[in-house]
Amino acid sequence: MSSLLDLKKTELIELLKTEKAKYDEFCKRGLHLDMSRGNPSKEQLSLNGDLLNAVTDPDDCLTDDGIDCRNYGAPYGIRQARELFSEIIQVPADNVIIGGSSSLNLMFDVISRAMTHGLANSPRPWIKEEKVSFICPVPGYDRHYKILEYFGIDMIPVCMTGEGPDMDEVERIVSSDSSVKGIWCIPVYSNYSGDVYSASNIKRLAYMKSAAPDFVVMYDDSYTVHDLYDQYADIPSFYKECCNAGNENRPIIFASTSKMTFAGGGISCVAFGGENLRLAQNAFSVQAITHDKVNQLRHVRVLKDLQTIHKRMHGFADILRPKFELVESKFGEMLGNYDIADWSRPLGGYFICFRLKYGSARKVISLCNLAGVKLTPAGAGFPYGIDESDSYIRIAPTYPSLDELETAVTLLCICTLISSLENVIAMEA
Amino acid sequence: MSSLLDLKKTELIELLKTEKAKYDEFCKRGLHLDMSRGNPSKEQLSLNGDLLNAVTDPDDCLTDDGIDCRNYGAPYGIRQARELFSEIIQVPADNVIIGGSSSLNLMFDVISRAMTHGLANSPRPWIKEEKVSFICPVPGYDRHYKILEYFGIDMIPVCMTGEGPDMDEVERIVSSDSSVKGIWCIPVYSNYSGDVYSASNIKRLAYMKSAAPDFVVMYDDSYTVHDLYDQYADIPSFYKECCNAGNENRPIIFASTSKMTFAGGGISCVAFGGENLRLAQNAFSVQAITHDKVNQLRHVRVLKDLQTIHKRMHGFADILRPKFELVESKFGEMLGNYDIADWSRPLGGYFICFRLKYGSARKVISLCNLAGVKLTPAGAGFPYGIDESDSYIRIAPTYPSLDELETAVTLLCICTLISSLENVIAMEA
Repeated sequence: MSSLLDLKKTELIELLKTEKAKYDEFCKRGLHLDMSRGNPSKEQLSLNGDLLNAVTDPDDCLTDDGIDCRNYGAPYGIRQARELFSEIIQVPADNVIIGGSSSLNLMFDVISRAMTHGLANSPRPWIKEEKVSFICPVPGYDRHYKILEYFGIDMIPVCMTGEGPDMDEVERIVSSDSSVKGIWCIPVYSNYSGDVYSASNIKRLAYMKSAAPDFVVMYDDSYTVHDLYDQYADIPSFYKECCNAGNENRPIIFASTSKMTFAGGGISCVAFGGENLRLAQNAFSVQAITHDKVNQLRHVRVLKDLQTIHKRMHGFADILRPKFELVESKFGEMLGNYDIADWSRPLGGYFICFRLKYGSARKVISLCNLAGVKLTPAGAGFPYGIDESDSYIRIAPTYPSLDELETAVTLLCICTLISSLENVIAMEA
Repeated sequence: MSSLLDLKKTELIELLKTEKAKYDEFCKRGLHLDMSRGNPSKEQLSLNGDLLNAVTDPDDCLTDDGIDCRNYGAPYGIRQARELFSEIIQVPADNVIIGGSSSLNLMFDVISRAMTHGLANSPRPWIKEEKVSFICPVPGYDRHYKILEYFGIDMIPVCMTGEGPDMDEVERIVSSDSSVKGIWCIPVYSNYSGDVYSASNIKRLAYMKSAAPDFVVMYDDSYTVHDLYDQYADIPSFYKECCNAGNENRPIIFASTSKMTFAGGGISCVAFGGENLRLAQNAFSVQAITHDKVNQLRHVRVLKDLQTIHKRMHGFADILRPKFELVESKFGEMLGNYDIADWSRPLGGYFICFRLKYGSARKVISLCNLAGVKLTPAGAGFPYGIDESDSYIRIAPTYPSLDELETAVTLLCICTLISSLENVIAMEA
């Protein structure tokens, strides 16, 4: 690979002029593209027509064990839904509780409950602690960090390595600082670095010593079946590792079908071990009588088991793969010669992580916005929305069509070149 | 009406012997009836077949304003769902937020958020107050009181009058005690006294002075369209009254379709005014990306508007009315001659309130349980589950068939006679 730094100043200025002219052309096109969120596309959603027809007969609303899904009851969810998620997240079905359509809501509830009541082994409710902190792998999921911000929990960023967070750093912090009550993890196709945690890192998360007796891992397993290729992400059961380590209260594991069926109408789950399961079940029974069991029934009828899910997800992969590959090849084609950025090549999930070497992420995103392409705001995925390096950009290629995506990524590359060139020219001045 | 007290001791003993013999007969029947919760019956649920078929075509998942209900977005719910509940609870649609299937969950969330963050005009989060109290009309809804208990909020019982709580008492407490942050109200067909609040009481709730600057009325409007007869419960808009009184932060209004469509698969809402609306919307946007909009779409297509809902509810009334009338006539027939109990004759809702004059509610319920008929536990609907008078029993006649109901109520009357006779005989001894 050559580098922008190899070019002479006149060449840099000439290149900047060319890219600016291209940018001006884009601005004239009156684009209106939104690549800010990881939304499934219409094409994906339409693969789930069977879900809409899975429960249509009033005489056919019973579970195998005779629960009428239309009525009250089964506060932790119907058996089959608990078993389905049990397979997906590798936790016994008895430990699984089914929620509504949003797993984020279940995460919020755990933190909220920890604040007011504490979790297993908490010396006191977290709100009564002088300080509560969380480790936040970066780049990560902005909405995880918004929850912490809402509750005034301190955030400690730790870098991702390509196979999970820097575990030396995590262990150092967790073992020495008793204010550190938890860490967020997305073990498979992490939002948005794309990391799949290594087996060794998962083991370390389960076994590591914590200064806080009530330290938990908020383990958001939301992309675990979202492979882009034929190979499945195969990771050990975090729950089992924690039990083996004698830390059964540590794992709090979340998943949802938001990106298997409908983002706006799926089902979600949370699983706990040990005393934390008992505390959660108690809270659940005060909090709600039942979540939507009819929708649980629809889901178990259509998704059936892990094997069926994997088969269905092939259909999604076929839609998503070309999008990811388009972005990666466009990056290679337009930026590969300049050594000014790198990007992840995830094997699954919803995002590509794009990192600038010389440019400013804020500047690039703002240029794109001005030309009508909305990207995830700079700093999203970092605590308090602050990426001190100003270099990370989250690419969410799932929603736009291939044509739109090509347009958006071309523009992004142009803006990246402009920002990088301006910075390199300024450096050399 | 004659009275048990008019009978001679020998007659009392003879009657007790007769009733005990009847009770023994019941015990031999091996009954298994559950009348403990206000569940809709299968017959009712089956009237909602159209809901299961309201959204079955993947090309037909858009709202009128173009929102794809299958995807993320519209965090406060789809416009039509907000408008539908707006009509039901008499609050502008902009003030309505749609939740999942459980309005209880929305209530829990409000109290939880008040604990961690406070509400509009809160001097501090409630959890940082020395003491927080709530007025709890009795008999009321046990799950309301469980939420308060879970958060360690003190409960002050105030008696129901037949048209809402004793407002003199409520005003006295609320105006003088700044620890009193709220009151629970079920304004129409109250669970489980059956009260419909008078217009004057609703006005007083809106206008009364409160010592706490952040006093709220948790206004659970869950039975507002659940009329048993042709006449609709017609109450003024509490929201409007509060606004007129300059107390726009006071009303927090809940409703759900749990008993219009499916108890296990409906939709719910909460509405706020003033600054409390802004705070709630902010919390909602951190808490979840979206609730199930496909189910919202199903509901607006089927329920349409208030007029359509009233029409649909006639179907339910036709199923429920004979059950309520059976209970009332059985009570009259078996107990009317003894003046040992009274009972509500509600015009809607899900419950009959049964009150013993001489008997022990605990004893009666335990006798029924022993004979195989499960009733709502004694004390449910009272703070901490304690009915000091030991006289109230909640009758939930909706779920059993007419035959089962006749059996259960006959048994209840026998047990009431036994307990009353034993107490009267002991009194006279």
